[in-house]
Amino acid sequence: MMSGDRLYSVLKNIKEQKPIVHCITNYVTVNDCANILLAIGASPIMADDLLEVEEVTSICNGLVINIGTLNVRTIEAMVKAGKRANELGHAVVFDPVGIGASTLRTETALRLLKEVKFTVIRGNISEIKAIYKGQGAGQGVDASELDKVSEDNIDEVINLVKALSERTGAIIVVTGAIDLVADKEKCYVIKNGHPLMTKVTGMGCMLTAVIAGFISANKEHILESTAVAVSSMGYGGELAFHRIIKEDKGTGSFRTYLIDYMSKIDYDLLKEGAQIEIR
Amino acid sequence: MMSGDRLYSVLKNIKEQKPIVHCITNYVTVNDCANILLAIGASPIMADDLLEVEEVTSICNGLVINIGTLNVRTIEAMVKAGKRANELGHAVVFDPVGIGASTLRTETALRLLKEVKFTVIRGNISEIKAIYKGQGAGQGVDASELDKVSEDNIDEVINLVKALSERTGAIIVVTGAIDLVADKEKCYVIKNGHPLMTKVTGMGCMLTAVIAGFISANKEHILESTAVAVSSMGYGGELAFHRIIKEDKGTGSFRTYLIDYMSKIDYDLLKEGAQIEIR
Amino acid sequence: MMSGDRLYSVLKNIKEQKPIVHCITNYVTVNDCANILLAIGASPIMADDLLEVEEVTSICNGLVINIGTLNVRTIEAMVKAGKRANELGHAVVFDPVGIGASTLRTETALRLLKEVKFTVIRGNISEIKAIYKGQGAGQGVDASELDKVSEDNIDEVINLVKALSERTGAIIVVTGAIDLVADKEKCYVIKNGHPLMTKVTGMGCMLTAVIAGFISANKEHILESTAVAVSSMGYGGELAFHRIIKEDKGTGSFRTYLIDYMSKIDYDLLKEGAQIEIR
Repeated sequence: MMSGDRLYSVLKNIKEQKPIVHCITNYVTVNDCANILLAIGASPIMADDLLEVEEVTSICNGLVINIGTLNVRTIEAMVKAGKRANELGHAVVFDPVGIGASTLRTETALRLLKEVKFTVIRGNISEIKAIYKGQGAGQGVDASELDKVSEDNIDEVINLVKALSERTGAIIVVTGAIDLVADKEKCYVIKNGHPLMTKVTGMGCMLTAVIAGFISANKEHILESTAVAVSSMGYGGELAFHRIIKEDKGTGSFRTYLIDYMSKIDYDLLKEGAQIEIR
Repeated sequence: MMSGDRLYSVLKNIKEQKPIVHCITNYVTVNDCANILLAIGASPIMADDLLEVEEVTSICNGLVINIGTLNVRTIEAMVKAGKRANELGHAVVFDPVGIGASTLRTETALRLLKEVKFTVIRGNISEIKAIYKGQGAGQGVDASELDKVSEDNIDEVINLVKALSERTGAIIVVTGAIDLVADKEKCYVIKNGHPLMTKVTGMGCMLTAVIAGFISANKEHILESTAVAVSSMGYGGELAFHRIIKEDKGTGSFRTYLIDYMSKIDYDLLKEGAQIEIR
Repeated sequence: MMSGDRLYSVLKNIKEQKPIVHCITNYVTVNDCANILLAIGASPIMADDLLEVEEVTSICNGLVINIGTLNVRTIEAMVKAGKRANELGHAVVFDPVGIGASTLRTETALRLLKEVKFTVIRGNISEIKAIYKGQGAGQGVDASELDKVSEDNIDEVINLVKALSERTGAIIVVTGAIDLVADKEKCYVIKNGHPLMTKVTGMGCMLTAVIAGFISANKEHILESTAVAVSSMGYGGELAFHRIIKEDKGTGSFRTYLIDYMSKIDYDLLKEGAQIEIR
């Protein structure tokens, strides 16, 4: 379990430092990413033209690279922004959306992994396995049923993510029914969240943005602040689920309420709900 | 009236088969399209780069081509994806948004109609007339008042859409105050929906995506499943309207509640509200 | 204070004339811009390809140019559409989002100001100062704390915006805790709005779109209708804030409720809340 002091300071730092996060992300969920960054107290800026990404990233504290709707124009901007952010020592978070869905995605992800040093890589288990193996698995943007993390295979998956963290130097985040946040030695296992989160687009993208916000304001405690980000989002999903059931609503309201809760999460709220263990 | 058995199986198939729908669509309403596909039990993937659309569409069950914010880059991707989906026998749905608004839109729509075989074409009456005539009518993205379908001109419009279905081989869907779903011989007339649906962007785009989801999971009954999709969306609009009136809300909540209802629609709910006749 | 008659006619004209507004805007908040235009009774069309923007803008009543996610392709479309709208005498509104964030943004904004005659320019105080000085200030998309308008510096800022209006020929709108709407001689000071509006993305973009809607339907009274647009949006924010507090909600619901209120604002509602003074 994470100490209360750490939880407290991670949440306080983001409200106080209001980090600016540059996002080069997909056009499907970009609005949600901007709104959830604002909800947690960060400030988003979206910019993807090759001619401006280096300058834009220079005035920010962190960078998100999300390949959800990559194209030949934006891929070059991702590489350029990533390198500049590395030079500046900014936090850089990678979301390899649908890495298995096409050769372009797989090759772009592998190129980014070679040319940019990521602070955190977040994906579903199929995406993380594709990175581990260095090749796509031919599925879409959702995790394959065969890959899912359960109590039966969790030790094996933890070994895999620790090994991937060692190889890449990045914190690895796997999200699903059970979430994992690992460096090469330590793995947080987080049991927050609700299955309805798979029925709203952009939950992964939003979490990636939230992680970038949290770690940009907590650079001394990247692993812990990533775990808090993951737990916050999952607990927000639980609270949103309870509210829609009470009010007889559906997935549209669920998405709105999740953002509502992310704008309200503080130490007192999260300490009641966070389910963060160490393995 | 459609049989209860058909209604039941159409709705059951989509929940069971969870079809993946590749959308090449506009950046205005793309998030709503993704969320409504998830709400009904399908799974969206958005990808528009020429280098990946063929591969992406190959791992999906259906394809949406929507020209709402077309550009010279994405037009080529639409053609390529459409041809590949045709080779694979996938359901392909076309939404000729604003076909009358520019020469680029009109010519792109006509080119797509020539190079891609569509399973369903959905538009407002002005868009469908523009396709019928092979030329744009110079209006924006909303239907012209002069074109609107009413009890006075409905027989004439039904003849037009049946003729267009015969010519194109596609099911033709006209949405408005009265909705029509026709092949060359049969036309379903659907009287679900609410005028407030014209005050939220993307109702047409979302319906196009929903149709792609429904027919991808019901390939033996394309005409019927298209009619159920149209009726579901319209009935969702009616329920959303009643709820915002009760809660003294407006068009922002209306959009959220429509997605809420689409995530809850099942046989028991829809059989109470579906207004589907045959002419 | 603005006369009740003017307030009444400005609001009536938009509902009656249903102006079509062409938006070349960023992909972050484009959906919100479309929905808020529909909410107030206008009709949006988004189109950004060089090959169609002149034709599209020709069938519209007003044009929005917003550089929030500009790229080399869309910049040329902005210039071309702006020139065509000028030839046709359409209302053209400029939103120089993040003008200080990169050389590309600063140079594009200055080029647009040289090549296109704007009816209204809307930004936060840092963006408006950057235009006044002809150079960016190196900040992101939010106003710098140092620039903020307060009772202490308001006279100085009013002089600056009047001077900028004289130089550009455009109405200048500065939004923040206090909003200003000025031509070269007269400045409306508007004290509607709520600080939570800074915690939802696109509030500025949406207001820019709303202004375009209001002035396209009130071409004889551009200054007054711009002031009414600003006051409407701010009062909508106040009402949305009261509602989320009452219902224990957060920023996700705040955004939905703001659109709800914009779909309901009429003379009777706004006359109770409008805080529009002249200086």
